[in-house]
Amino acid sequence: MRLLVVGSVALDSVKTPFGEADEVLGGSATYFSVSASYFTDVNLVAVVGNDFPKEHINLLKSHSINVDGLEQRLGKTFRWKGRYNFDLNEAHTLDTQLNVFADFNPKIPDSYKDCKYVFLANIDPDLQIKVLDQIKDPKLIVCDTMNYWIEGKLDSLKKLLSRIHILVINEGETREIGKDPNIVKAAQKILSWGPECLIVKRGEYGSLMFSNSSIFSAPAYPLEFVYDPTGAGDTFAGGFMGYIAKADNLSDETRRQAIVFGSTMASFNVEKFSLERLQSLSWDEIEERFKFFKGITHFEDLK
Amino acid sequence: MRLLVVGSVALDSVKTPFGEADEVLGGSATYFSVSASYFTDVNLVAVVGNDFPKEHINLLKSHSINVDGLEQRLGKTFRWKGRYNFDLNEAHTLDTQLNVFADFNPKIPDSYKDCKYVFLANIDPDLQIKVLDQIKDPKLIVCDTMNYWIEGKLDSLKKLLSRIHILVINEGETREIGKDPNIVKAAQKILSWGPECLIVKRGEYGSLMFSNSSIFSAPAYPLEFVYDPTGAGDTFAGGFMGYIAKADNLSDETRRQAIVFGSTMASFNVEKFSLERLQSLSWDEIEERFKFFKGITHFEDLK
Repeated sequence: MRLLVVGSVALDSVKTPFGEADEVLGGSATYFSVSASYFTDVNLVAVVGNDFPKEHINLLKSHSINVDGLEQRLGKTFRWKGRYNFDLNEAHTLDTQLNVFADFNPKIPDSYKDCKYVFLANIDPDLQIKVLDQIKDPKLIVCDTMNYWIEGKLDSLKKLLSRIHILVINEGETREIGKDPNIVKAAQKILSWGPECLIVKRGEYGSLMFSNSSIFSAPAYPLEFVYDPTGAGDTFAGGFMGYIAKADNLSDETRRQAIVFGSTMASFNVEKFSLERLQSLSWDEIEERFKFFKGITHFEDLK
Repeated sequence: MRLLVVGSVALDSVKTPFGEADEVLGGSATYFSVSASYFTDVNLVAVVGNDFPKEHINLLKSHSINVDGLEQRLGKTFRWKGRYNFDLNEAHTLDTQLNVFADFNPKIPDSYKDCKYVFLANIDPDLQIKVLDQIKDPKLIVCDTMNYWIEGKLDSLKKLLSRIHILVINEGETREIGKDPNIVKAAQKILSWGPECLIVKRGEYGSLMFSNSSIFSAPAYPLEFVYDPTGAGDTFAGGFMGYIAKADNLSDETRRQAIVFGSTMASFNVEKFSLERLQSLSWDEIEERFKFFKGITHFEDLK
């Protein structure tokens, strides 16, 4: 099943306590696509400048990612510069240069419009709505957002929420949208605005999935070495949706497994800078780590 | 199987965003005992002043807790005053009056010395060692500590660690003892000092259990209403050890179930102030919540 992602492709400069990387491949749609590519075919929609290195496009193509929707425009590519301290759960943005991304107005190529699985990475909710208007008959729409839009465009965001199936956000954003310090109550409020499911990403604490009928809690992989958390959330979403698209099944059981595949992919991603680790995985490695998750969460039920 | 606990019995004054309680029953040994009493018989060792209300002793007795080791001395009972903000994971101590607890020198009654299961709640590690010297042939020794002793008595603490089986501490303490921001590496360092198992309590994020051969991750119960987190850690330890003593089994599988029972008991405890909720549970309620944990963590393995 083809999977559509609309988001950013960027050049990141990142510093962590363990090293730094300068102008390396990044962006929400990039991490999502490469992660999902291990499960299904991906259609990418994003914009880059004419300074964007061809090797990066080749990397995407080598993962069978369709880049017909990757618009290349005169100007510079979106750049993000950030730093992480020992608390690797929190990114400190040092600089953001939107460049060609400032006027991003996603056009979905005709060949993409039949996509049944759609991921709207974190962009202006008005643009996310415009994307949905271009899709024929989606089976599952999953969406991310951030505090910037929660604070500046809450009305648009609520309109969007009434049209999507699953919202994937982090813990702080959940409390901020739901306006409640209690995560369960914040989740209930968000579900009341439309999505049938909310996934709360909690970094090294794993994730929680809420629907009206079920809660699922998954840990993060207990990693000894975390070098660079950049892109972990989008990599998680890529594994999650990639697996659902591959299974072509929307059951709660499939979603739970998909969450674990999301956590699996994210755990690999943070082991190296940029997409270094993500781009060179084998299916055996992925499957082995999925099974490890089964092992660390299993306990016998009462007789 | 009788279970021995040595720790504090106190009068707590607590303020949270949801209310306050003045001079109510508290203390590590209290929470531990009442929690464990749902699983097994408990022998308590602690000290209180002659101002300690008789109704509290009656409460302990009504849970079949043996209070032969509860020394009552001339003077005032240990008092703790604390506050929680919306981040209920962190207690802010406003006042501590050790009173008779300042000279606590635990004497284990002869009738307790055959106990096979021993919990050393958070007291001076030198005293914890003195307790161990008085026990004949323990099968399982579990121990708690806090930053105060990590900073002031690390040598004594390390001596203690070489004599115990399981250390139960919170996440910050794990990083502090293990001197590593990475929880996995900090855990490995702590295990290298003697304990065969480390349990890391992470508040609303659940817990992690590390041994040399296995990792287990359990979530916290996703609670809609948390009124007072005081005693959650000791209540957790009480459920954990109570279940192990009841099962009289030290296998990894039993420990995993015990962790879930610990989380179950802790989740009830925080629903009301002091021991209000903990003292009036039914086994059906406990079992139902255990099964809920099974439900929220289950996912199908790969075929």
